[in-house]
Amino acid sequence: MSEFKVIEVKQSVMENNDRKAEELRKELKANKTFLLNLMSSPGSGKTTTLRRTIEALKDELRIGVMEADIDSDVDAATIEKTGVKVIQLHTGGMCHLDAHMTRQGLENLGTEDVDLAILENIGNLVCPAEFDTGAVKNAMILSVPEGHDKPLKYPLMFTICDVLLINKIDVMEVFDFDLEKCKEYVWRLNPNMKVIPICAKTGEGVQEWADWLREQTLNWIR
Amino acid sequence: MSEFKVIEVKQSVMENNDRKAEELRKELKANKTFLLNLMSSPGSGKTTTLRRTIEALKDELRIGVMEADIDSDVDAATIEKTGVKVIQLHTGGMCHLDAHMTRQGLENLGTEDVDLAILENIGNLVCPAEFDTGAVKNAMILSVPEGHDKPLKYPLMFTICDVLLINKIDVMEVFDFDLEKCKEYVWRLNPNMKVIPICAKTGEGVQEWADWLREQTLNWIR
Repeated sequence: MSEFKVIEVKQSVMENNDRKAEELRKELKANKTFLLNLMSSPGSGKTTTLRRTIEALKDELRIGVMEADIDSDVDAATIEKTGVKVIQLHTGGMCHLDAHMTRQGLENLGTEDVDLAILENIGNLVCPAEFDTGAVKNAMILSVPEGHDKPLKYPLMFTICDVLLINKIDVMEVFDFDLEKCKEYVWRLNPNMKVIPICAKTGEGVQEWADWLREQTLNWIR
Repeated sequence: MSEFKVIEVKQSVMENNDRKAEELRKELKANKTFLLNLMSSPGSGKTTTLRRTIEALKDELRIGVMEADIDSDVDAATIEKTGVKVIQLHTGGMCHLDAHMTRQGLENLGTEDVDLAILENIGNLVCPAEFDTGAVKNAMILSVPEGHDKPLKYPLMFTICDVLLINKIDVMEVFDFDLEKCKEYVWRLNPNMKVIPICAKTGEGVQEWADWLREQTLNWIR
């Protein structure tokens, strides 16, 4: 029997999202909790990457996870097995999370014993890019089967992220994925993007990603 | 130099979308044009599948394509090479098309010499499912690397579609994709869904899909 809470989060239509997001970030700073917003297409490997990330960092940081989904609980059930604190957020059909919904999630998760909170956003490259959740950093996963041209087609997502994980690099040859061309497209939109190729299935590259995330978290909460 | 038109389509906030969609379908019936709305995640192979579909049907049907994108033109440029009529729709950041936007597209495409119009919707499994475009049939592509559990996570999309193409079946073993489990999840949501496994890259399964689409089109326009 799963133990995690399931929260129905509701969007606030009356409030200014950017202001709400700034307020939330200030509170996170005061409370010494780092919030990562993890975004991608459906099926790019967010949950598997998250499991690897937790394995790599759970002995050093106290981690809490918020799994956002339209209405299933499968990801929260997977993450619960890693032993970290997890809650499931249901958006009731909404295609993204805003700062108000993220705050409801954090209040239900409880951040007093969490150094690193991770929000696994809805699988969608469009809408989540338009709403500041209040996260300290935005990460996205692009998986190799999606193709190296995706920065051309979903430019806002690639513009607002701080780090890009290129996942499933074990199948690069099968899909004629051109890593250099992908980086070129990304850096044209966002010269500061950190790009880390990984294979969440085998663990390749996960150490570099975990090192980056640990450093960001420790800088924020110290 | 590309010859296709690029149209900035705008959402109508004042009108009832369902009513607009019904009106559009009636006009399409009167004008003998079948409209297919093709949806999927980013990178699932919509454009490659569309190229194969055009190859299979262009000698029998007069085809017109509307490529919807946030703001790139790469897909329209690809489709233009097939020789069919194509226009590019830009949604200006919008994550889906509604009936009003689709109408603007069709007016610019011109349907008087089109038997089969195909709308390639924005790559997104959430929002496009919520807006009736006025299409006669909805098709979606799920690609194998996305995983067989996607019907559980994006149920509305799988509920509103008439046909599901499961693409990239050449890599089923690499990704431990369970086709029978996927069908079971799909049919639990939508017992009438037609499911066709394909590989757009090699052409496998495309004949069955083209046969289905030809039959639907001829039934509508005769």
